[in-house]
Amino acid sequence: MSSATFDSVQAYESARETLIQQDRSLRLDYKRPPLTQDEAAADQYIRQLRAQEAKSVWGASHEDVPHPFPGMEFLTGKAIVEQTELFKLLKKMPKGALLHCHLDATVDAKVLLQLALEHPEIHVRANSPLASDCVRTALPEFKPIFSSDAKTTSSVCASSGYEAGSWVPIVKARESFDEALGGPEGFDKWVLSGLMINASEAYDTHNTIEKIWEKFISTFGVARGIIHYVPIFSKYIKASLLASIEDGISYIEPRIYFQDEFMCGVDGEVNVPHRQWLQMFDTVVQGLHAELANQGRQEEFVGARLIYSVGKTLTPEQLKWYTDDCIQLKQQFPHIMAGFDLVGPENISVPLKTYVPTLLEFNAKVKSLGLELPLILHAGETLGDGDEPDSNLYDAILLGTKRIGHGFSLAKHPELLRLCREGEILIEVCPISNEVLRLTSSMPMHPLPILINHGVHVAICSDDPCQWGSMGLTCDFYQVIASSEVTGLIMLGEMAKDSIVYSRMSDNDKTRAMTTWNRRWAAYVKELASLGRSTESQ
Amino acid sequence: MSSATFDSVQAYESARETLIQQDRSLRLDYKRPPLTQDEAAADQYIRQLRAQEAKSVWGASHEDVPHPFPGMEFLTGKAIVEQTELFKLLKKMPKGALLHCHLDATVDAKVLLQLALEHPEIHVRANSPLASDCVRTALPEFKPIFSSDAKTTSSVCASSGYEAGSWVPIVKARESFDEALGGPEGFDKWVLSGLMINASEAYDTHNTIEKIWEKFISTFGVARGIIHYVPIFSKYIKASLLASIEDGISYIEPRIYFQDEFMCGVDGEVNVPHRQWLQMFDTVVQGLHAELANQGRQEEFVGARLIYSVGKTLTPEQLKWYTDDCIQLKQQFPHIMAGFDLVGPENISVPLKTYVPTLLEFNAKVKSLGLELPLILHAGETLGDGDEPDSNLYDAILLGTKRIGHGFSLAKHPELLRLCREGEILIEVCPISNEVLRLTSSMPMHPLPILINHGVHVAICSDDPCQWGSMGLTCDFYQVIASSEVTGLIMLGEMAKDSIVYSRMSDNDKTRAMTTWNRRWAAYVKELASLGRSTESQ
Repeated sequence: MSSATFDSVQAYESARETLIQQDRSLRLDYKRPPLTQDEAAADQYIRQLRAQEAKSVWGASHEDVPHPFPGMEFLTGKAIVEQTELFKLLKKMPKGALLHCHLDATVDAKVLLQLALEHPEIHVRANSPLASDCVRTALPEFKPIFSSDAKTTSSVCASSGYEAGSWVPIVKARESFDEALGGPEGFDKWVLSGLMINASEAYDTHNTIEKIWEKFISTFGVARGIIHYVPIFSKYIKASLLASIEDGISYIEPRIYFQDEFMCGVDGEVNVPHRQWLQMFDTVVQGLHAELANQGRQEEFVGARLIYSVGKTLTPEQLKWYTDDCIQLKQQFPHIMAGFDLVGPENISVPLKTYVPTLLEFNAKVKSLGLELPLILHAGETLGDGDEPDSNLYDAILLGTKRIGHGFSLAKHPELLRLCREGEILIEVCPISNEVLRLTSSMPMHPLPILINHGVHVAICSDDPCQWGSMGLTCDFYQVIASSEVTGLIMLGEMAKDSIVYSRMSDNDKTRAMTTWNRRWAAYVKELASLGRSTESQ
Repeated sequence: MSSATFDSVQAYESARETLIQQDRSLRLDYKRPPLTQDEAAADQYIRQLRAQEAKSVWGASHEDVPHPFPGMEFLTGKAIVEQTELFKLLKKMPKGALLHCHLDATVDAKVLLQLALEHPEIHVRANSPLASDCVRTALPEFKPIFSSDAKTTSSVCASSGYEAGSWVPIVKARESFDEALGGPEGFDKWVLSGLMINASEAYDTHNTIEKIWEKFISTFGVARGIIHYVPIFSKYIKASLLASIEDGISYIEPRIYFQDEFMCGVDGEVNVPHRQWLQMFDTVVQGLHAELANQGRQEEFVGARLIYSVGKTLTPEQLKWYTDDCIQLKQQFPHIMAGFDLVGPENISVPLKTYVPTLLEFNAKVKSLGLELPLILHAGETLGDGDEPDSNLYDAILLGTKRIGHGFSLAKHPELLRLCREGEILIEVCPISNEVLRLTSSMPMHPLPILINHGVHVAICSDDPCQWGSMGLTCDFYQVIASSEVTGLIMLGEMAKDSIVYSRMSDNDKTRAMTTWNRRWAAYVKELASLGRSTESQ
């Protein structure tokens, strides 16, 4: 490899080309069969468009965005992303499966608020009377209330003498929201800001992993008061699935948070067990199949399964109850339960190694019962280097995880990179989530290219699209493709295919999903190729 | 690796330990011979101190630092870093060699200003008359002027009717600096802000790679007006070497920027050729050896060599003149010229591949003349993924570079990681530089752990300590050790040893450097071990 070995510039250039090919030989878009003519033309067109918009869009000045660049902080750059032609074209791409998202965070915040407003029994309260100095920090809390002895307060605003913590019917609270605080629209803003993370929080007031996680966790508390209520839950699931289908996702495998043992029933009693949650889920999925079939759209939706998840705050003894619960649910709903996971802010959570005995026992029981119920664990969602959060990766892999949620710190581990590549453990990479939650400052700093170049299987995932306002996968796909030169449309396609291969759907569904994906992909690249030709001829 | 293979928690734990060892087996601090008793105790003490100060110092609240954390943005966190005990102890560590810095950026800005003030023939001018609204953006420019027809303006301030661009004697300009702008101290501030990068620039006004590079390059223009003047140059070199020695660095190998063919002589004429620059350098180094020997401090300084560097703005034809010049200088000063390099903002510079024919020719000529004059190239100082700047890494390696300056994007390249590890190409990692110049937002996001864990040889370097106010290597060492769990004192020691091994000093000097380093290291860890014991017994 010494320069002395080159007799000519030509010999150098040939060695250079060989070296580049060798360096990229593990990449899935370099290993795959040759491109079709349409694929090659589509890839070419997307590359041209990306290069052109890097100048025309990202190189232009934008009011309120002092430093625009491709792959920039999503919450600041979102409006710019959405005006690109590249974004619009990616929207149409068949995305395959969504393998990493949290069910409670998959519906647009506005839609969720609308669902709440359609139910007058939903009440809201604030932890302090709302006035201009606290409307940004006081959190709304929701709960269905039927009892007639609910207090008669009709506003959450300080001007009306609101007593912190009293429940107010949501519609009244909205109607009576102080004009000074924006009236009903001000109420909506207040609720949405409790359900979402905004740019100022992520990049200014809460600009560390620990601080933004505090805000992040609070949004789930706000949302669950609405979602975990039977009459809303079914509608919510449907909205969630439709948001994915809308974006070209044909199969969804969300984590469902089962730490609460019950949700609120139609009578306002919190007594509806997990079993019924799954029945509702099943009913919605079946209903959606029928509905889409009626519209001739059955190709767009293969199905959905759920990964049982609980928080890494439990004691091992508490965890035992949940793993048993998960096994029972799997036995009752084998076509729905896809796996088991533990979630939470990795830097401050109980490390996986604490749960090893319980999880080994779970694995053994699953095996002895002949169930298909693997661990699909979050791990390495951290900047740690050899500390406990980072070391969760060792446990996830040793515990036999089928995929790794995030795996942000995986790039630091040569042996684990090899095990994931050779052991076919897919990494569920959540670009925007990682950036908003401050693991990376922008997409160009994200370790995704390291994983891709090391030949590790990856699926791009949205994690919590409600919180960052990025329904579907298009925003995440955009961030990935906009901030690389080597990764183009073909690599996005390989990741979409992998999302199907590494999903937990049935073999039959997988075949069907892959067949329809291939068909939709062929149509998609054909359309792009034709766009490319018409652009050339202009 | 499936969990089914574990019959017991004990079997699991043993497999876990094996996996961790395997994953870390390429790390130099895991491959080295067993620790001495003092090393083990010192390492232990530093780990305890780090953990303790992560809470007591970084966990405390600090005025003006809203989000303190270990490894945070250096320009914001510097004052906190410097108050830690860990920093004070690292200051005493023998650092080995400084392998990557730019000579024009190695002296504290205040010292540089003082050097200028000692020479009344130095004049200053501003590109606009200074007033409160422009004092932050108007750059000072310096130049020695002797001719009597220099204009008699005596202030650069708007209030005195300063005409933009007229030269003013530095001492007068300082004395007459508007009281409203801070008087003489205001003048100093103005000059220092032209020589350095401050937190507000790096993290706010210029918070992208492209923008901060504009500011960064401007600082060199300000500095060179003072440095590239014979009577100052020698004093400057001495100050530079002493700043390193002061910090426990025993050998320095700076890049010297030779793009200007001449510097300014004692008569004010810009006609002093490169040969004389090296003569001055040689004289200072020899003088310093003598001076330190007189003080019984000869162990502290082994020597210094220079890497010829020019900008990646040249045409290949222009480059030819410089490579020839470099070879001639090597023939005249074989004990000073260490190698050849090309520098500049990688994202917008001419890619290395453009220079391949010229550099192959250079290599061939060097070889035919039997010279020791390798390429020691900057490459991969970018967030690019497969674009031209990122691909400079292929060329650097194919061109036979002995080390890689920065190699920030190397982690993306599995084959290049292997080539660097097996081909013993050391990476000159500049933590603070990378962070201030916005390749990474903070040290925990830096790819250094990836390189270390993949067994690539690394030396920690300061790059441009004047610009970030981080004289020596202690600040960079601090940022590295504070933001990791696995990397401790022993790894810092391995990197210090590697900095000697991969330097371009003579074999004799290398032996001497290593012997004295080992002696100083033994004393250092002994002191730390004893500190650890006395802490324990408290």
